[in-house]
Amino acid sequence: MPRLSNKGLQMPESPIRKLVPFAEAAKKLGRTVYHLNIGQPDIKTPEIALNAVKNSTIDVLAYSRSEGSEVYRSKIANYYKSHNLHVDADDIIVTTGGSEALLFAMGSITDPGDEVIIPEPFYANYNGFATASGVKVVPVVSKFEDNFALPPIEEFEKLITPKTKAILICNPGNPTGYLYTEDEMAKLSAIVKEHDLFLISDEVYREFAYDGLQHHSVLKDDTLKDNAIVIDSVSKRYSMCGARIGCIVSRNKNLIQTALKFAQARLSPPTLAQIASEAALETPQSYFDDVKSEYTDRRNTLVSELEKIEGVKVAKPKGAFYCIAQLPVDNAEDFARWILEDFHHNNETIMVAPAAGFYSSKGMGKNEVRIAYVLKEADLVRAAEILKVALEEYPN
Amino acid sequence: MPRLSNKGLQMPESPIRKLVPFAEAAKKLGRTVYHLNIGQPDIKTPEIALNAVKNSTIDVLAYSRSEGSEVYRSKIANYYKSHNLHVDADDIIVTTGGSEALLFAMGSITDPGDEVIIPEPFYANYNGFATASGVKVVPVVSKFEDNFALPPIEEFEKLITPKTKAILICNPGNPTGYLYTEDEMAKLSAIVKEHDLFLISDEVYREFAYDGLQHHSVLKDDTLKDNAIVIDSVSKRYSMCGARIGCIVSRNKNLIQTALKFAQARLSPPTLAQIASEAALETPQSYFDDVKSEYTDRRNTLVSELEKIEGVKVAKPKGAFYCIAQLPVDNAEDFARWILEDFHHNNETIMVAPAAGFYSSKGMGKNEVRIAYVLKEADLVRAAEILKVALEEYPN
Ligand SMILES: Cc1ncc(COP(=O)(O)O)c(C=O)c1O
Ligand SMILES: Cc1ncc(COP(=O)(O)O)c(C=O)c1O
Repeated sequence: MPRLSNKGLQMPESPIRKLVPFAEAAKKLGRTVYHLNIGQPDIKTPEIALNAVKNSTIDVLAYSRSEGSEVYRSKIANYYKSHNLHVDADDIIVTTGGSEALLFAMGSITDPGDEVIIPEPFYANYNGFATASGVKVVPVVSKFEDNFALPPIEEFEKLITPKTKAILICNPGNPTGYLYTEDEMAKLSAIVKEHDLFLISDEVYREFAYDGLQHHSVLKDDTLKDNAIVIDSVSKRYSMCGARIGCIVSRNKNLIQTALKFAQARLSPPTLAQIASEAALETPQSYFDDVKSEYTDRRNTLVSELEKIEGVKVAKPKGAFYCIAQLPVDNAEDFARWILEDFHHNNETIMVAPAAGFYSSKGMGKNEVRIAYVLKEADLVRAAEILKVALEEYPN
Repeated sequence: MPRLSNKGLQMPESPIRKLVPFAEAAKKLGRTVYHLNIGQPDIKTPEIALNAVKNSTIDVLAYSRSEGSEVYRSKIANYYKSHNLHVDADDIIVTTGGSEALLFAMGSITDPGDEVIIPEPFYANYNGFATASGVKVVPVVSKFEDNFALPPIEEFEKLITPKTKAILICNPGNPTGYLYTEDEMAKLSAIVKEHDLFLISDEVYREFAYDGLQHHSVLKDDTLKDNAIVIDSVSKRYSMCGARIGCIVSRNKNLIQTALKFAQARLSPPTLAQIASEAALETPQSYFDDVKSEYTDRRNTLVSELEKIEGVKVAKPKGAFYCIAQLPVDNAEDFARWILEDFHHNNETIMVAPAAGFYSSKGMGKNEVRIAYVLKEADLVRAAEILKVALEEYPN
């Protein structure tokens, strides 16, 4: 029997998908499962995007350029300009989702054994991309009690070694919903410049900033020209996760040239999805206003419903559409599985993501879950009710 | 200035795209460029595939399952069954092109420093995926004079070390057009079983076998259950390269489980393209018959036109849509660039791929080019004429 790779064996299982078989079993028993486990919004994709594909007159569905279609890239540059971020088409490589942008970034800047510092909890698939690249994730703990604010800069400095290649942040944060302040961004800027590191900023939730707060992109900081790498995606912005279009953005020419070689090896990003994504850029502002107000309402509802439950604490998110909740249980994974396997309330149950998988430090987040508020308010109210009853009945 | 990775710096440039700037410059001068450099067919995509996307009633373009949509996977299994290849839906992971299938295969079976033996010349991007994975490509030379038949098995055995994880073949071959015989496949089967290696068979050109010859998939061999990995793609089969849909197929459950973890990290393959690809499976046989006869005619025309040129030799392809031609020049890359930069015939010129980039051994293929017969016969005739005049005028 031929042997698999060590890295293949070490690839982490996604904490979001781990419980899927139990959810499927519950559905087979005729139960309704409220999916709070995954960032798949129920928001409609802008019609303008879907129609562009329907109206396309392509007769040979050909490869696009490896860096993405020229027109689309220049329109993306305009999108950034409209956000006061000065980026040229040449600073952009269109990727197959933000996921591939992360892979290209890792590949371009790290060799096996290198280290990337990431405030935890973090988007769980960073672990997967790091493992695939043989890279060590060095977590710096951001605290539930602080609402997951940026850890003190000294904590970063303690962790920097000659093998450190980058600091990777997610802003607004998944799974925390945290939105970094201008001051926090300035601190990060100083530290990466001082230590000649890259600052990878995953900004796929850029538009999802609530309470009138402003998002501070790393692209705003001109002194970070050589250090900043942005990971972006149409997935959440236009509720078109299945398109698989994102991009990697940097004004560091060498970085982009290197990432382009990875892009050339895989030939091109999806053509139909680029057509949809290009059209999506014409989505009117009212769409985003509506979406933002919808998510704000959902967040407010979810947080207030959760806070009503005895023993449940929530870190109030300022962006994205996730929150971390602490539950009065020892092991949130066991509990999450139990709700699917052994519990229902009037034939309904919920699926949440155990938060331990979002931490890299062993033992962290054991009593926490990540809840995605991607469902309608009424469903969130009902989901919170189910959680309440489950906690009461759980033989802890 | 932060440092890029060694592997990023070592990523090879694609030999297919290297000369693109010169082609673009030629076009800016008003010249027509016949593109023989890239496997982008001009054949129409089946309407049934394009219409499926146009008629889709999706309103939220959501992620599909990481392993691909359930229905699509079971239909792919039926496609294999119709080719007498016994594969279940569970043996298949839908990928973003054959490219991603190659990446998942490499990731699942190799760690940095491991080796993969590949008959050269080979599809140039194997180098890119190997470099990205830190894997050493160990070439075994297949000879122009032998029409690129499988090198003797002793040559493989000489190269096997404790670090060897797999033999990777491309059948039918890009860039050679070679189609392995049943006997050659049996030899490969014996050797990988004896040494506990994987046999990765890139079969994206499966349908393109000419002269009544049969394609022999590694999936036919039941004794290879644990060793065989197939790389597949809709790109060439349905002339839908831009869809970015392929798959990795193996009856080795551990391999599939491991590849699935890589698939989960990147969330899902493109949804719109899966809709098109699922519909493409309904393409009538007459489409393939037409395409095959078209490519056979193109091949015959191209080969006979090339053979008329003084000093040009061609290895006659039996499959796929490429051939390797030896030219009476010292350095085919210099020549290919010269044709674009300094030459034209009645304002027309051609772009070919220098073949050295398809070899891993330094110095091999220096006087060879790869020609893709993806253009209409009349254009191929004209392209050969341009080549003839260029060779006459070239100050070698
Ligand atoms: C923080 C973050 N980054 C990147 C991604 C990748 O998304 P995609 O590949 O769909 O663009 C996600 C998806 O959930 C995410 O939450
Ligand atoms: C031999 C071979 N394998 C794999 C691929 C990858 O194709 P795709 O990613 O479009 O499926 C190609 C494309 O030209 C190829 O020639």
